[in-house]
Amino acid sequence: MKLATLRTPSRDGQLLVVTRDLKRAVAVPQIAGTMQAALDDWGRVEPRLREVADRLERGEYQGAFEFDPARMAAPLPRAYHWVDGSAYVNHVELVRKARGAEMPASFWTDPLVYQGGSDDLLGPCDDVPIPDESFGIDLEGEVAVITDDVPMGTTRSQARDHIKLLMLVNDWSLRNLIPGELAKGFGFYQPKPATAFSPVAVTPDVLGDAWRDCTAALPLIVHINGVLFGRPEAGVDMTFDFGRLIEHITKTRNARAGTILGSGTISNYDRTRGSACIAERRMLEQLEYGEARTSFLRFGDRVRIEMLDAQGRSLFGAIDQRVVKHAPGR
Amino acid sequence: MKLATLRTPSRDGQLLVVTRDLKRAVAVPQIAGTMQAALDDWGRVEPRLREVADRLERGEYQGAFEFDPARMAAPLPRAYHWVDGSAYVNHVELVRKARGAEMPASFWTDPLVYQGGSDDLLGPCDDVPIPDESFGIDLEGEVAVITDDVPMGTTRSQARDHIKLLMLVNDWSLRNLIPGELAKGFGFYQPKPATAFSPVAVTPDVLGDAWRDCTAALPLIVHINGVLFGRPEAGVDMTFDFGRLIEHITKTRNARAGTILGSGTISNYDRTRGSACIAERRMLEQLEYGEARTSFLRFGDRVRIEMLDAQGRSLFGAIDQRVVKHAPGR
Repeated sequence: MKLATLRTPSRDGQLLVVTRDLKRAVAVPQIAGTMQAALDDWGRVEPRLREVADRLERGEYQGAFEFDPARMAAPLPRAYHWVDGSAYVNHVELVRKARGAEMPASFWTDPLVYQGGSDDLLGPCDDVPIPDESFGIDLEGEVAVITDDVPMGTTRSQARDHIKLLMLVNDWSLRNLIPGELAKGFGFYQPKPATAFSPVAVTPDVLGDAWRDCTAALPLIVHINGVLFGRPEAGVDMTFDFGRLIEHITKTRNARAGTILGSGTISNYDRTRGSACIAERRMLEQLEYGEARTSFLRFGDRVRIEMLDAQGRSLFGAIDQRVVKHAPGR
Repeated sequence: MKLATLRTPSRDGQLLVVTRDLKRAVAVPQIAGTMQAALDDWGRVEPRLREVADRLERGEYQGAFEFDPARMAAPLPRAYHWVDGSAYVNHVELVRKARGAEMPASFWTDPLVYQGGSDDLLGPCDDVPIPDESFGIDLEGEVAVITDDVPMGTTRSQARDHIKLLMLVNDWSLRNLIPGELAKGFGFYQPKPATAFSPVAVTPDVLGDAWRDCTAALPLIVHINGVLFGRPEAGVDMTFDFGRLIEHITKTRNARAGTILGSGTISNYDRTRGSACIAERRMLEQLEYGEARTSFLRFGDRVRIEMLDAQGRSLFGAIDQRVVKHAPGR
């Protein structure tokens, strides 16, 4: 089942059920008005949404209309919890190596997460407003899951059943603001502007065999200004699967329905796959040539992130955005 | 005006208007069903709530009932954004001094913030479930503001008008989990279990002259197991006022309606005021005696946090909680 959120004058938009081919959609106010409302009561709501999805797929549903990603907000336009892992430890190791620092061995067994801004999430085709190009504008291509209520103390094996939906993420980052802020010791805040999400969120069964061991075992395809930048395999080199990440985030707290949990930038040891962020390519260039050669993004640049199934069909639709200068007062 | 949220079977509870003496309350479903709904449309909703508050104060309102803090959820039982400052730099300086580290001079001019879990907030009298006493259970007494929509690029002077409500906070912390996690470089996550808030949130005018320069110029009174622990002045030694903190958090993003922004642990140079967290007292003991003498909290311990006006009347009601062992499966 594929779900989306139509942008409306309401802050939370309107929940849509979307066909597998991403061509048709229908609103379901009689079941749930918004994505958060559906997640708040998922056990009761999910079977009813699936019934609509089945009828929509068979062309039996009245009131269906053309699905237009440009009219979509993020599946959750605002969320109560957005926590992002750094599950591809290869990436973390590279970051350290590029600045000549040793990575602690515990990083292979103890996940790293940070909490992102969740009150203002970007739709798949929204412009990305940034105040200043000099901040070092970068993408981070990721997969994320959405959970139902996950109680404190949930184990990795229990965690799997709490994963209700999957999405793609562009975790926009401002690289030149990171060193100064991390040096303060409290983690990220200013270097993380609003995050963007794919046009639809899908139930794990949509991935078929590619939903494997709590990972999405497919390549994430990243284009910058129409040129292929990377297609790292999300199912390869993910040191901590989503089950382990959920165990980590519920050690001392509950995670409530609608929690968005990201994988962190997808990153493979196989360098021929390319990268899902510019910073990683720059680090590889640093290590290879002694200097970074690829620039961070400029105003007007476009970034497209997508994931295809084995038959080449888009699973989530594309995140396809343009970076723009933030105009104060808007 | 004082507002609260009655716990109901709904996740967001029910918005109440409360009398200034915290004795009577009334639900206002005809105006706004929940605190978030009120904040989403504050410009339209606030005058209508004030009209109810005025009539309630005069005893003219039908349907009022006794206000019972024990039946209250946090004013926002779940929020889209909870960001906590560390505005009392005296406290930060002490932390560093106790571990023999120099504090960078920039800490006096560049605010430190971290983002807390906002999907699962505790009511004023809720038990505080912690998995293990050895985590180093500590309180952090703070003041917080709630904002309306604050656009990216808001300046300190513009920020004042975005502050709609004030609350007290106990930002529960697990001290023994902090060093290991901060060493990982991404800030806090596991050391910050669910945060607790006062029975009511109040509009700044309730503080009268004590709402001064975007600070709450009154002592925060902290008791542990009935014994006075500290009464630091929230208006003294606050290096960054709430206006400056709002400027900081909107440098690269919008803060949406219902953003909760905390002051960080209140801390004065005048040591006779005591502390608003155990960690600070332990650091002072460390510096004075060469060892910390006060223990962190144990299961069964109670913490009470309150703020009184010049006439000794409770402004926000008391946060009054007991620490309990988390029972898995609950």
